[in-house]
Amino acid sequence: MPTETVTSAFPGFRDAAAALTPDGPPRVWSLIVTVFGDTAGDGGVEIGAGPLSRILEPAGISAAAMRVALHRLKGDGWITARRIGRSSAYRLDPARLAETLAASKRIYHLGPATAEWHVRVEPPDSAQPRAAGSIQIGSRTYLCPGPPDGAVDALLLQGTGEAPDWVRRKVCPAGLMANYSALRDGLVQVERLTQTAPRPGLAETIALRMLVVHAWRRVILRHPALPDDLFPADWPGAECRALVATLMDRLPRPTPDTLSAL
Amino acid sequence: MPTETVTSAFPGFRDAAAALTPDGPPRVWSLIVTVFGDTAGDGGVEIGAGPLSRILEPAGISAAAMRVALHRLKGDGWITARRIGRSSAYRLDPARLAETLAASKRIYHLGPATAEWHVRVEPPDSAQPRAAGSIQIGSRTYLCPGPPDGAVDALLLQGTGEAPDWVRRKVCPAGLMANYSALRDGLVQVERLTQTAPRPGLAETIALRMLVVHAWRRVILRHPALPDDLFPADWPGAECRALVATLMDRLPRPTPDTLSAL
Repeated sequence: MPTETVTSAFPGFRDAAAALTPDGPPRVWSLIVTVFGDTAGDGGVEIGAGPLSRILEPAGISAAAMRVALHRLKGDGWITARRIGRSSAYRLDPARLAETLAASKRIYHLGPATAEWHVRVEPPDSAQPRAAGSIQIGSRTYLCPGPPDGAVDALLLQGTGEAPDWVRRKVCPAGLMANYSALRDGLVQVERLTQTAPRPGLAETIALRMLVVHAWRRVILRHPALPDDLFPADWPGAECRALVATLMDRLPRPTPDTLSAL
Repeated sequence: MPTETVTSAFPGFRDAAAALTPDGPPRVWSLIVTVFGDTAGDGGVEIGAGPLSRILEPAGISAAAMRVALHRLKGDGWITARRIGRSSAYRLDPARLAETLAASKRIYHLGPATAEWHVRVEPPDSAQPRAAGSIQIGSRTYLCPGPPDGAVDALLLQGTGEAPDWVRRKVCPAGLMANYSALRDGLVQVERLTQTAPRPGLAETIALRMLVVHAWRRVILRHPALPDDLFPADWPGAECRALVATLMDRLPRPTPDTLSAL
């Protein structure tokens, strides 16, 4: 299906794309990682340069920009390339695939995060760096997702119940709150634009899905997986999650067959 | 029963008293508070100057020193006095009685403290003074006895399980550990001295009991009521507690009748 037809078939695409990228177009290499992450499945997927360009084109990414980004991703060990005749096909490097699948657990878990969290107080003489994926709430005191781990030198406390406002504002500071609000506004607009006919064509459906996943991924991965009631009362995260779930249904994930047919 | 008879009947008294007061004789006013606390019962008790002097005399406290201390305690609102003929009788002030009974809950609870404790993380801008009866384990992080209270502005975490060594050393630092060790040594000696005949007479039994309670009170009230497994592994507190329980049985608490018969 040639891209021109698709574009004309769905005049709302530009508005929708703009609503999802209020800070300008996404970085090409980062959006490509989203595409591989969304389509990978457990074993990864191989995507040809042709289909990839047809997904990225509606998002305003030229074939030249795509080639530069693919070159960089290959150089950084993110993807591997295989020549097929005059063209190339790409897949995620196995180590990056594992990382991507780990992140996918959070991106596609479209319900509230696990209720478990814990607090960790490091010893006074600790040379420990700040635990990754934790929120610092005191000089040596961290709020962490999940049940207490087996750390022997830290005091570990299972979290329960409500958290005061100042803790919620550390979990989701003003900047991240603004990102969530912008995302909510974008998702509301995309939801409205995709509610009624005319529907986007195949490449635009995939492109729009990629932009939704990408925008969601960039926000959700900026904080650890903590339960909703550790976020500020006016946090629009649950609303974003519901809108993303609706749009994931409406803009279905492409299968390998769909991709190669593009 | 005149004091001289009692003293001669139990030659180990001086050694026992010395073992319980390794840093020299206790402050007289403080020991008198112990006497009133130990004998008070729920409604307080009135003790005449005569019986009081017969309890304090074996501990090396002269009648003159007792009078000075009683004067001070009266001036500070600790006790009230009532004239009876040529003599006086004293009782704890009602407010001080309430405080004393609260402290008694800890002094006479001769089993492990409640297993409940919690951690409290104060907000960054907190003007809260350090919570009384808590252990500071971080700049705004406190370990507190009992279940989480209803503080709205602090993050409260129910404590469970083991604590690392550095926390235990904050709960019972080196100085308090030394006090506990000295107490244990003193209690072991008193236990040995009171095991066999000749037994101390009535006034000396009471005096020795007061010295035991006093020494125990001065150590146990220097830290909050936290479970044993928050103390260092070599903390002799459980051993002290068992020895105090043995000696409380062996040196029974005087009744008001016993006191007035002295």
